[in-house]
Amino acid sequence: MSIGMKSERIRSEAFLAKVMSAEQAAKFINDGDVVATSGFTPSGYPKAVPLALAERAKNGEKVEITLITGASVGPELDGTLAEAGVIKRRFPYQTDGKMRNNINAGNIKYADMHLSHVPQYIEYGFFGDIDVAIIEAIAINPDGGIVPSTSVGISPQAIRNAKKVIIEINSSQPLALEGVHDIYITEKPPFRKPIPIEATADRIGTTYIPCDPDKIVAIVETDITDKVRPLGEIDEDSKKISKHIIKFFEGEVAAGRLPENLLPLQSGVGSVANAVMAGLVESKFTNLTCYTEVIQDCMFDLIDAGKVTMASGTSFTPSSEGQVRLYNNIDLYTKHCVLRPMEISNNPEVARRLGVLSMNTAIEIDMYGHVNSTNIMGSRMMNGIGGSGDFTRNAYISIFTTVSTAKNGDISSIVPMVSHVDHTEHDVQVVVTEQGLADLRGLSPRERARAIIENCAHPDYKAKLTDYLDRAEALPTKHESHLLNEALSWHAKFVETGSMK
Amino acid sequence: MSIGMKSERIRSEAFLAKVMSAEQAAKFINDGDVVATSGFTPSGYPKAVPLALAERAKNGEKVEITLITGASVGPELDGTLAEAGVIKRRFPYQTDGKMRNNINAGNIKYADMHLSHVPQYIEYGFFGDIDVAIIEAIAINPDGGIVPSTSVGISPQAIRNAKKVIIEINSSQPLALEGVHDIYITEKPPFRKPIPIEATADRIGTTYIPCDPDKIVAIVETDITDKVRPLGEIDEDSKKISKHIIKFFEGEVAAGRLPENLLPLQSGVGSVANAVMAGLVESKFTNLTCYTEVIQDCMFDLIDAGKVTMASGTSFTPSSEGQVRLYNNIDLYTKHCVLRPMEISNNPEVARRLGVLSMNTAIEIDMYGHVNSTNIMGSRMMNGIGGSGDFTRNAYISIFTTVSTAKNGDISSIVPMVSHVDHTEHDVQVVVTEQGLADLRGLSPRERARAIIENCAHPDYKAKLTDYLDRAEALPTKHESHLLNEALSWHAKFVETGSMK
Ligand SMILES: CC(C)(COP(=O)(O)OP(=O)(O)OC[C@H]1O[C@@H](n2cnc3c(N)ncnc32)[C@H](O)[C@@H]1OP(=O)(O)O)[C@@H](O)C(=O)NCCC(=O)NCCS
Ligand SMILES: CC(C)(COP(=O)(O)OP(=O)(O)OC[C@H]1O[C@@H](n2cnc3c(N)ncnc32)[C@H](O)[C@@H]1OP(=O)(O)O)[C@@H](O)C(=O)NCCC(=O)NCCS
Repeated sequence: MSIGMKSERIRSEAFLAKVMSAEQAAKFINDGDVVATSGFTPSGYPKAVPLALAERAKNGEKVEITLITGASVGPELDGTLAEAGVIKRRFPYQTDGKMRNNINAGNIKYADMHLSHVPQYIEYGFFGDIDVAIIEAIAINPDGGIVPSTSVGISPQAIRNAKKVIIEINSSQPLALEGVHDIYITEKPPFRKPIPIEATADRIGTTYIPCDPDKIVAIVETDITDKVRPLGEIDEDSKKISKHIIKFFEGEVAAGRLPENLLPLQSGVGSVANAVMAGLVESKFTNLTCYTEVIQDCMFDLIDAGKVTMASGTSFTPSSEGQVRLYNNIDLYTKHCVLRPMEISNNPEVARRLGVLSMNTAIEIDMYGHVNSTNIMGSRMMNGIGGSGDFTRNAYISIFTTVSTAKNGDISSIVPMVSHVDHTEHDVQVVVTEQGLADLRGLSPRERARAIIENCAHPDYKAKLTDYLDRAEALPTKHESHLLNEALSWHAKFVETGSMK
Repeated sequence: MSIGMKSERIRSEAFLAKVMSAEQAAKFINDGDVVATSGFTPSGYPKAVPLALAERAKNGEKVEITLITGASVGPELDGTLAEAGVIKRRFPYQTDGKMRNNINAGNIKYADMHLSHVPQYIEYGFFGDIDVAIIEAIAINPDGGIVPSTSVGISPQAIRNAKKVIIEINSSQPLALEGVHDIYITEKPPFRKPIPIEATADRIGTTYIPCDPDKIVAIVETDITDKVRPLGEIDEDSKKISKHIIKFFEGEVAAGRLPENLLPLQSGVGSVANAVMAGLVESKFTNLTCYTEVIQDCMFDLIDAGKVTMASGTSFTPSSEGQVRLYNNIDLYTKHCVLRPMEISNNPEVARRLGVLSMNTAIEIDMYGHVNSTNIMGSRMMNGIGGSGDFTRNAYISIFTTVSTAKNGDISSIVPMVSHVDHTEHDVQVVVTEQGLADLRGLSPRERARAIIENCAHPDYKAKLTDYLDRAEALPTKHESHLLNEALSWHAKFVETGSMK
């Protein structure tokens, strides 16, 4: 607790009167409030105030809120509040087990959204009033400028639109992060201007988020760490997927369709995504840039190897080991990285202008090229669409990866028709599994189907998929042929018997 | 035919040597060629050369081509060539009966694409080499600059990338169109710059398309007219849909979520789309602008009424009556209109910056808000996705309309699960039928379902939809509940019995 003197982190004495305990600060949140917070992945989310809020609920008080974040957040926010029954409505993305179970049990109303839509939804008033913003920061400037910590996410819009702002100054987050952020906020139409980014490295804003000091109702000091997770091993399937993609890139360069140093890479979340980027460390590519959401461990490898000159994202999402590494070499990594608001990291305008090579992971993909990223067996929410649509739709080349089977082979991730569509055939250009790669550009639906079955399906399911396609093509309507009575029967069979076989 | 003197339309004597008959020009097209043409809707497409090409095929010669256009085109191009067996592969959109039948019979390989993707697919080389471009023009400048006619579409990219360019100078297209076009071409990543449009009326380019004169292999003079169609009556259902939308806009203005003069309107194709715009003529809104693809008759009404100050599109798509009106008042309408390349009219960057209010028509919509715009009963291609995705995804508010039933009530356009997805739940914010309007912003999937059934479904199908939803929600997984064995059974039933009832 501060004792009456401004500090390195609280940079004006005027703010000292607002320093209080998390319990006191949490009282600013009322039942029925819409709460928007910092945080993107388990990085840079508020921790102390949410924990204190959960306590109120556990003590029997009725506090039910709508929670809006950048993306997934750590357990102090999503898990604890979901378990305590505090969250009634949730936008736009989550990965927390407790949150997920509550969503699928029907206890929490969840709408997963394109991440690029969220900041403007706040600005446009489509979520209603934002009652409270809770923002983790490493410091607060004399004029109220908020220096974010390990992520930016929706903080600029949350701060600008909230009636009350609560700041968590987190001393576990190194002050040396200052300078890595590049904060630029767009205006609403009809006053919006072009976003002046022409290359990954371009800095167009400030290193802090402007904030009207009068809106700050509480400043809470805490040292609870980001709940990063240990690094998983990269499995053989992921390595194969990575190899297929790198070979594909080499072919595109050879054909003159991609520059030697490619174009800015965007890589999704999960183990496959990490493996793909890791594979680049051993590739011949150099002078790479990344325009993506999350900066994971593999990016540090790529920077160390001199392969990546600049990585732009909205959060550092290291593993436990990666966090140590980031903090030990913070000057190096912040030189090669920039953290932007999610509105900019995920902006269709910038993704299309730069021509990102998007690589995202699917739950399942159908033979015509539609992708399900979110709903297992059509109904059970996994995480959400996240930024995958922002990048995919606007990519130079959009790639989707998946392991060809799941649940020990009882599920084929290549199916006749996906049970839920997040990305349509119009948006999916390349499909990759450990079996191989299908380049769908320029193909008709039925050609796509042959290419995906041939190159990507697991041998155990190839004959069955071909049989479906053959019989569908025998029908009179031959554009994107389907057997309506069978299209979802693979999923129904799995639900009934535990296997698609 | 020119007789050795440059003219108002062929503005340099150097080009006179290239003037030839359509038959001669058509010989520049070889079997196996990739051909890219002007044209967007039955406006501004080449006519004489395609007709001559069809003749070659009818005379027994093997000429099979890939055809790439802006969008749908008139019968001289799509219909005649499809019928003659000349077109083997087709991108990205069509509405021609003969073309459609050939696609659905499996004779023509068709990939329907987001229109905004097409120009960059050409530039990136994803269609392979463009062998020939055939471009309708009103004039050709001494330096080769091509002045387009009633549409722009993909002409700039077709001209820039084709090995050979054939120009059709069409004297049925008034020279007074000159000046209405605004041609701006983006560079490929990594050299692409922001598109400097900040308002609908901004002009950022030239009034002609630059063209290397050496690439021009033939100039054909013709006077075949655009095959525009008579104006349909606006039916009662469309009027009701229009009223619901205007009431919704009024509510948004009252709530402070939209400016008094709204934001640039984008309106899709078809009768409903036309009715919606027509409804605005009698509304209280003024100072409107439109940032859309096609400028239809209703736009002339809106300009005449002083309601629309500026309309931006990529084509004039008048009815037969509207064409007369356009040509009789060409100075007035060209003052209030600008025709841009499809890459700009449909650009995600510009659509999002301006904050378009997108209004497109669906074939069917499911209770969770997914939209099928293309494939009837999941398989039979109607037209294609066109630009609906370009605008919808990047809209300030995205609206989809449909009449609640089709085929005399035997089909419900609101179904448990659409048989094909073109626009996902993440992209659809407002659903409107003649029954009413459902505002889905901020709702969870199950709330969306209740809102759509309640407000938009036809009374004949409400109980059946509610029954499906009730039983689906009773399953253990309650996020986006579906009965996998029944989800597509409505469609299967229609195919078997001729009715969903
Ligand atoms: C799709 C996604 C869940 C895959 O993540 P991952 O870590 O690579 O995948 P995993 O192989 O661990 O699979 C995750 C779960 O889905 C299950 N699964 C995978 N494929 C499946 C399929 N075809 N059918 C049913 N379940 C499947 C796995 O069994 C696993 O379940 P479990 O946790 O109960 O064991 C993840 O990438 C995601 O959420 N993507 C959407 C958001 C996104 O793309 N964000 C990036 C934007 S920048
Ligand atoms: C969806 C679309 C076909 C509707 O067009 P429309 O003229 O308003 O619609 P109609 O009511 O005349 O219906 C067209 C046909 O679809 C049929 N149809 C409509 N709803 C149907 C449904 N739910 N199930 C099956 N068929 C249906 C109609 O019966 C009609 O068939 P017919 O020609 O055999 O009589 C058209 O808007 C389209 O192609 N949209 C996609 C592209 C787009 O949105 N472009 C705009 C971007 S700027």
